[in-house]
Amino acid sequence: MPRFRPYIVGIAGGTASGKTTLARTIADTLGRDRVSLVDADSYYRDLKKLPVEKRGHINFDHPYALDAELLREHIKTLKKNRPVEKHEYDFEQNTRARKKSIIQPLPLVIVEGILIFALKELRRLFDLKAYIDEAPDIRLVRRMLRDTRERGRSVENVADQYMNNVRPMHEMFVEPSKAHADIILSNGNGVDGFIDHLQSLLQQRNAAKGGKHAKK
Amino acid sequence: MPRFRPYIVGIAGGTASGKTTLARTIADTLGRDRVSLVDADSYYRDLKKLPVEKRGHINFDHPYALDAELLREHIKTLKKNRPVEKHEYDFEQNTRARKKSIIQPLPLVIVEGILIFALKELRRLFDLKAYIDEAPDIRLVRRMLRDTRERGRSVENVADQYMNNVRPMHEMFVEPSKAHADIILSNGNGVDGFIDHLQSLLQQRNAAKGGKHAKK
Repeated sequence: MPRFRPYIVGIAGGTASGKTTLARTIADTLGRDRVSLVDADSYYRDLKKLPVEKRGHINFDHPYALDAELLREHIKTLKKNRPVEKHEYDFEQNTRARKKSIIQPLPLVIVEGILIFALKELRRLFDLKAYIDEAPDIRLVRRMLRDTRERGRSVENVADQYMNNVRPMHEMFVEPSKAHADIILSNGNGVDGFIDHLQSLLQQRNAAKGGKHAKK
Repeated sequence: MPRFRPYIVGIAGGTASGKTTLARTIADTLGRDRVSLVDADSYYRDLKKLPVEKRGHINFDHPYALDAELLREHIKTLKKNRPVEKHEYDFEQNTRARKKSIIQPLPLVIVEGILIFALKELRRLFDLKAYIDEAPDIRLVRRMLRDTRERGRSVENVADQYMNNVRPMHEMFVEPSKAHADIILSNGNGVDGFIDHLQSLLQQRNAAKGGKHAKK
């Protein structure tokens, strides 16, 4: 068993493209006991050393906002079949929250985030890279609804952030990172096929574990 | 003088692409005494015979919602150097308002609307057709801000209408009608050049009026 390491799948795509929904659907379909989820959102840099009034100026859509070193360390640890302890991120304070959770090195580890294919040191770690391609206006409708409903933000605030940060950073970093993807998912059929593929992949690895030529 | 008829320019493009702003900029630049503006929005069908509760179901982004016959009649009248009397449209009641305005057959007549190139009987009437090509997410940001601020609508309401009516009708009718445009404006440079072009066009016609071979 320990000779098998988790299969690491990256799911990238623009804001509100459906990354988290897809990751959860995969976990529900293949079984929560076989799939671990890692959201790159938990790996934003801890800004507790920065005065509160300056934290609002940080552009969370720029790769620099991500603590890529820590995320990389965690993925590498999972690949060695060891669990990691991840802090939640407090989006109100822009600090690493006290709340922690353990991520187990289950057979399939799904890492999802907008910028995970934009950073070379991260994208090297994935066994399979999937990019969700969704129309920008559809993503904006979803984000507008989510941020006004669930995060109590105003239309103006969401619109400003979208035009000033989200959109330019998407064009500069997220959209070009699509070129690194192995699979581009642009509709429901693609998603079904992708889940089927992961399912048979897990079955093959499971079968292989019984055989004498176990892969690394 | 009466042997010269107005030059009819159509400006189309998706919702909130900047059609009205462009039409007004042209009128301000070339002179309000030389440019008449016709907005296709005033030509929605009068729904006063329809029960009020059914009016909400009308899809105003479908070509059928437009009283194309009346708009066509008005453009043809202007081309004959005769003024037309246009009713405003009451968007709360979905009826033709009592308020009227006179449109004069000035040297340049600009007709603007999302669907004016989608209907064959309308697009035939233009001497020049310009389409404003703007990214769908940028148009949605503008529409969301405008409809929530100026029309007192909720984010959910704007989002629903966008997904159910505006977006599918845009893909079905507005976007394909771009193929009929003579000029596609996709950034500020294009707009500047377009206004320059109209300006020299008016000057040529003005100069030609003095010559012996006046065009029709």
